Amino acid sequence: MDNGASHGGEAAGTRPRSVAELVASLPGSAAALGRLLTFVEQGGERAHEVGRALLGRGGNAYTLGITGAPGAGKSTLTTRVVGALRAGGHRVAVLAIDPSSPFSGGALLGDRVRMVDHSLDDGVFIRSMATRGSLGGLAAAAPEAVRVLDAAGFDHVLLETVGVGQIELEVAAVADTTLVVVNPGWGDHVQAAKAGLLEIADVFAVNKADRGGGRETRRMLRDMLRLRRTETGGWEPPIVETSATEGSGIDELLAEVDAHRQWLAAQGELERRRGERLWSEVERLFLLHVADRSRALAPFHGSEELRKQVLAGETEPWAAAELLAERILPAAAPAD
Amino acid sequence: MDNGASHGGEAAGTRPRSVAELVASLPGSAAALGRLLTFVEQGGERAHEVGRALLGRGGNAYTLGITGAPGAGKSTLTTRVVGALRAGGHRVAVLAIDPSSPFSGGALLGDRVRMVDHSLDDGVFIRSMATRGSLGGLAAAAPEAVRVLDAAGFDHVLLETVGVGQIELEVAAVADTTLVVVNPGWGDHVQAAKAGLLEIADVFAVNKADRGGGRETRRMLRDMLRLRRTETGGWEPPIVETSATEGSGIDELLAEVDAHRQWLAAQGELERRRGERLWSEVERLFLLHVADRSRALAPFHGSEELRKQVLAGETEPWAAAELLAERILPAAAPAD
Repeated sequence: MDNGASHGGEAAGTRPRSVAELVASLPGSAAALGRLLTFVEQGGERAHEVGRALLGRGGNAYTLGITGAPGAGKSTLTTRVVGALRAGGHRVAVLAIDPSSPFSGGALLGDRVRMVDHSLDDGVFIRSMATRGSLGGLAAAAPEAVRVLDAAGFDHVLLETVGVGQIELEVAAVADTTLVVVNPGWGDHVQAAKAGLLEIADVFAVNKADRGGGRETRRMLRDMLRLRRTETGGWEPPIVETSATEGSGIDELLAEVDAHRQWLAAQGELERRRGERLWSEVERLFLLHVADRSRALAPFHGSEELRKQVLAGETEPWAAAELLAERILPAAAPAD
Repeated sequence: MDNGASHGGEAAGTRPRSVAELVASLPGSAAALGRLLTFVEQGGERAHEVGRALLGRGGNAYTLGITGAPGAGKSTLTTRVVGALRAGGHRVAVLAIDPSSPFSGGALLGDRVRMVDHSLDDGVFIRSMATRGSLGGLAAAAPEAVRVLDAAGFDHVLLETVGVGQIELEVAAVADTTLVVVNPGWGDHVQAAKAGLLEIADVFAVNKADRGGGRETRRMLRDMLRLRRTETGGWEPPIVETSATEGSGIDELLAEVDAHRQWLAAQGELERRRGERLWSEVERLFLLHVADRSRALAPFHGSEELRKQVLAGETEPWAAAELLAERILPAAAPAD
């Protein structure tokens, strides 16, 4: 197993292999894994071929989402979690999901490989994944990438968000357990933004707790959790103080992740939520198909008169767009 | 004019006014402005009513996008730019666009109002705008909000991105001139991410230049601009060193923004690009209409068998989504 250094390139002299052959060589071939992930990231027909080839495989990987504000120490904490899971004999893959730019691609990868202690360990795989295109970027690629890593024999897949964005909520839609990383003092500002993280957190890490203030932050989080209206089904998110740089609190953190996993399994929630996520994925992909088909129907052809009206300030964009939608979906009730 | 403190609430005893009445009271009524922006932000039928009521109004506002990496000093620079424009007798509105969370809403507003020096100046209006929902969030609301501010008599509308995200590219799609804020040393890492900012920049500010390294960053930017493949139509983005905290370089920066404006006008580009942006807005709104109509057509009804197949791992999500899209848009060519 390589460490994400493979970008799907073919070594000189080897012949190209089909998607089916690549999938058949999992687990075991790092080159095949790298290429399959590249296909998934690129999207399009070959990505769907990967999806078809993976049917009936895997199902063993547990997905842990790691999210939180920028600067909270997510990367360092992820590295520590990887180390602790490896020490427990697990095979661990990390997908670092970067919403910051459609242009990042593999750019951050080098940084991460340098940063991570596990770069010579073949039970660890790290990959940066850019979320190209806002609609369905992560939705389309991340669950499929998780299935590839699952088929490649990783029993833990960590989904770490890099930077910040709406992606943090999308990550929760992919993960079995969502770990939210905060820092002491986090409670002091931007009340509303916290609501989103509060609602998706299954476990909290108060990281950099060695700097003090961890106790107050725990109390504040506990108070906020009491006020939240979300249906948790009875799970109270535990709050663990960690210091990723010192490596403290990591075992306790993983014990709480495991407790959440056990709780999910005992309630039948793990199965139910995975099923719900899978169907949500279908619903999101449905909108991608609809958008593609709508463009293919070329409703903009012959709309020169409408365009002139919009440019002249006689028709507002929303109404013009509605007229165009009407052309291809006339049977539907008006939008809104 | 208030400073964004109005959230569209009605003072006790005043009767509700229609959208047409609110629009008619622009410019002049800060309360009307606040309510109209709230309607636009909320979307839906009332937002479109605002759009219709604004037809034929405005057309005088120049929009300046201000974007760049987090920590680059965008907020402080924006404050300085507002001050310089005010000193020149302009009326200035700032839309601070926050992609970091669908939950931010007005939360950052208080911070900004405290931060900005202009909070008692009625030629300045500041408003935070959350971009709810990835597809069409900013696309749907920001151009409409700019039209409201235009009709309210602001001759400059600054669109400042808060945080980071794909939003930086969307801002360029709304602005007449896009100002990209970088810092000395910015060129040292994440090569690929820079490409996006390079392509949208009309003017660069190398901010925090008082810390040194400005000269090298200018040279590096100049080299990268030479390599870029984008069609600029002959405009070479100027690079200005600024120190927002000290207030230096701001006049030069605004002179370059004005030079870009003059260049656009002389080439007929200002008119042409505004027309293109308006039609792009129609195309994006078209997809929102299509998505709404597609959901309204309820293709998920009666798909229990398909759902079972997906959950059983017999059909992959992409193919299931395609079958559902086929139900409502059968005539279209297959997606991809």
